[in-house]
Amino acid sequence: MSSIQTYDPRTGALHDAAIGATTADDIAALCARAAEAAEPLADLGTWPPSRRAALLRSVADRIDDHREDLAALADTETALGPARLTGEIARTTGQLRLFADAVEEGSFLEVIVDHPDPQATPPRPDLRRILRPIGPVGVFSASNFPFAFSVAGGDTAAALAAGCPVIVKAHHGHVLTSARTGELVAGALDESGAPPGTFAVVYGRDAGRLLVTDPSVKAVGFTGSLAGGRALYDLAVSRPDPIPFYGELGSLNPVVVTPAAVAARGSEIVSGFAGSFTLGAGQFCTKPGLLLLPEGHGLEPALADAVAAVPPAVLLTPSIRDGFGEATARLAAGEGVKVMAGTAEHADVALPARLYATSAAAVVADPALLDECFGPASLVVEWADEDDLFAVLGVMSGSLTATVHAEASDVELGRRLLVRLRRLAGRIVWNGWPTGVAVTWSMHHGGPWPATTDPLHTSVGVTSIRRFLVPVVYQNTPQALLPDILRDDDPAS
Amino acid sequence: MSSIQTYDPRTGALHDAAIGATTADDIAALCARAAEAAEPLADLGTWPPSRRAALLRSVADRIDDHREDLAALADTETALGPARLTGEIARTTGQLRLFADAVEEGSFLEVIVDHPDPQATPPRPDLRRILRPIGPVGVFSASNFPFAFSVAGGDTAAALAAGCPVIVKAHHGHVLTSARTGELVAGALDESGAPPGTFAVVYGRDAGRLLVTDPSVKAVGFTGSLAGGRALYDLAVSRPDPIPFYGELGSLNPVVVTPAAVAARGSEIVSGFAGSFTLGAGQFCTKPGLLLLPEGHGLEPALADAVAAVPPAVLLTPSIRDGFGEATARLAAGEGVKVMAGTAEHADVALPARLYATSAAAVVADPALLDECFGPASLVVEWADEDDLFAVLGVMSGSLTATVHAEASDVELGRRLLVRLRRLAGRIVWNGWPTGVAVTWSMHHGGPWPATTDPLHTSVGVTSIRRFLVPVVYQNTPQALLPDILRDDDPAS
Repeated sequence: MSSIQTYDPRTGALHDAAIGATTADDIAALCARAAEAAEPLADLGTWPPSRRAALLRSVADRIDDHREDLAALADTETALGPARLTGEIARTTGQLRLFADAVEEGSFLEVIVDHPDPQATPPRPDLRRILRPIGPVGVFSASNFPFAFSVAGGDTAAALAAGCPVIVKAHHGHVLTSARTGELVAGALDESGAPPGTFAVVYGRDAGRLLVTDPSVKAVGFTGSLAGGRALYDLAVSRPDPIPFYGELGSLNPVVVTPAAVAARGSEIVSGFAGSFTLGAGQFCTKPGLLLLPEGHGLEPALADAVAAVPPAVLLTPSIRDGFGEATARLAAGEGVKVMAGTAEHADVALPARLYATSAAAVVADPALLDECFGPASLVVEWADEDDLFAVLGVMSGSLTATVHAEASDVELGRRLLVRLRRLAGRIVWNGWPTGVAVTWSMHHGGPWPATTDPLHTSVGVTSIRRFLVPVVYQNTPQALLPDILRDDDPAS
Repeated sequence: MSSIQTYDPRTGALHDAAIGATTADDIAALCARAAEAAEPLADLGTWPPSRRAALLRSVADRIDDHREDLAALADTETALGPARLTGEIARTTGQLRLFADAVEEGSFLEVIVDHPDPQATPPRPDLRRILRPIGPVGVFSASNFPFAFSVAGGDTAAALAAGCPVIVKAHHGHVLTSARTGELVAGALDESGAPPGTFAVVYGRDAGRLLVTDPSVKAVGFTGSLAGGRALYDLAVSRPDPIPFYGELGSLNPVVVTPAAVAARGSEIVSGFAGSFTLGAGQFCTKPGLLLLPEGHGLEPALADAVAAVPPAVLLTPSIRDGFGEATARLAAGEGVKVMAGTAEHADVALPARLYATSAAAVVADPALLDECFGPASLVVEWADEDDLFAVLGVMSGSLTATVHAEASDVELGRRLLVRLRRLAGRIVWNGWPTGVAVTWSMHHGGPWPATTDPLHTSVGVTSIRRFLVPVVYQNTPQALLPDILRDDDPAS
């Protein structure tokens, strides 16, 4: 049996402990158990809302109880630092508790009742619609958020809130953190009385492929690279019975700055931008990878200084480090691209942040300059006039976010930008920065391809639960046989 | 240029008029125009709800004005009869008007507002979520509903209600009806001031493939066969930028009858079943293709008589007629299958209805016996006990509907059946028949593969609009730049 060892990114040293790759037989057995856990008489979807909410809260409590040791362990595998990791754990458990609130609140079930109308042509029956769990869900952890988008992260929380069993494919970059988190989640679920098979963590690339193609798995959540996500998406849609695949794959997150904003707040924009694109070593899915500045902005020296002042950062894994080197080399070699700050030459494992610059015309001629560089790099593109600016927006693929920095005087340009940008991105940020995704009822973390594989859905916020629910409508069904919430005398209401 | 001619199914005679297949150049031009019509400053999604609702109602009015000549024309291409076709037109225009009501009502936009919380960690911004049109939609008409699932049918109505331009691929079986309906829709849209490019009808198999792969098309709705739907689905998900494909492909629609129901209402069930599976010559997507009767039901003579009394029926097209012959021949040749009523020997173009019978064990041994036979045929399966019954349900694929005939005394079996059947089907019918799909707010017309390609969504009812909408969330955006409905002082409220 092969095993997976992780590195300490700061030293390159392998951890002593290793996690065995899950075998094909074990995957099949775990998926079969998950299918049993999703059997109608036992599944979480049949639990009263209060009990399902309590289960989510117990998972949150268990993780909070181990906040410090989890953060310390994750730091040795990710080099993200204990402060960030402790904050990320709080976000993760806050997410579980928000979803518990949503389960109790109940509107996520989208109940609709049509009362019968014998006078209609044709006569209308009694129809009562509700959403129910789709079945076992496969979740793929991300490298860059070892808690919030990992074993107990958003996809897992959403699937459990929906009432679905979950099998998580751990990210190879933090398998020890994944295993420890998995033990805590499984323990909390067991104590809450969840059916056996409700939760498991699996390891290894083959395990991931088997998970997507197992007949018991009914939907997949994924956060990761464009290449990896596309390969798994292709597997999911090529099954004899295709299943929904919710992938978040890659995002440029453009930022447009108007001349008025440069004039009013140039230096503030420079420092905000440098802070945002280098946050977490630039390993955020919402990292602003493109800053669209008007020609003559005069911010070059300030940008170069701000980026040079960012401390060098250690990337998550050797493969991410290699990928960053390759992506920035391709960008630097692009026609008309110059280096504004940073260098590919560096002695240490920690990498300096890099900023590149080019013209709108160069990007329109070669839109591949806009390919995502995962890591602490970004691109400044200068535009001469609005036609130039909108030409760049016209060659851009979908993003999770799009940001505008503008002043009150920019009403017409602002309006034009918003109607264009909302076709490019799922979240529009006004005079702010896209990094930092609030976990709320209204949040949308999604967007057109390649930001996600399914632009109808989000992977953050309460509406992310909808991905793992399917409708059923009951026609003329006796009250006693309806789900409680559909009865005229719902016992819970 | 190749052209498409339709037959009068009753006589086999070709219609004089022919419709030219749409060329690749024309498809590209129409899709480009649709993309222009979806430009943010012009698209229907930016119209006030009252104006978009008026547009839907004007389409409905225009079709109602031509109800009689449309029904007469469609009858010459489908042989479905003027009464059924006139009723179907009423259903089609009722659907457009229901969606107009839904647009005005507004909840389909799923607005969620999170007010800012500077005290939160991290501080929560002002976030306002709304759904907006996904972009141009390709719609594939069905053979069996030349109005309700065709040019001005449910998918078109849902996409226009969402604010999306629509390009319909006409079904080759009723191109003259499609062209005439298309003229009426286009005329109503023009008069309502819809942007040019908002609507078009295209013809020919190649046109369909080009539509699914055109970069301007952002989603597809399809109703048709499993083979045809899978081929187009595979094209949609293989694009460089995969798009959502909402296909309704095929459905067995099982009916379970309890011993108590046989005893109480045996002859009523027989006549209801015979009427339902032969309605519209058995060419309904909700046709009950399987009747699960308890052993010793004693209904064989009544079933044989009822089916023999059904008048022979003309199928829609030569290819559907051939497919029906092949599918029933395969079923009749199955191990342990016997003919209960009807014959494959017939002199006329009209076909007698056919009923086959077999045992639960035979179906469990060869689940291919449950493959859909599109046309006036169904299968009776006898079960010995509940284990036997649930074994058959266990080998069944997804359906649009599942029906139970039971008595008040069947509480325990009824409960067990409902929790199993709701995993197999999107609509549970109690003591009724699945044919006849009410167009309402709560209706769900969907289900697990192969009933649909996306079990989260419906192709009938108000929630079908959701398929053509994507979320966008505005963060800290000035009131003046928000869509009206997201403003604190929504001018429409």
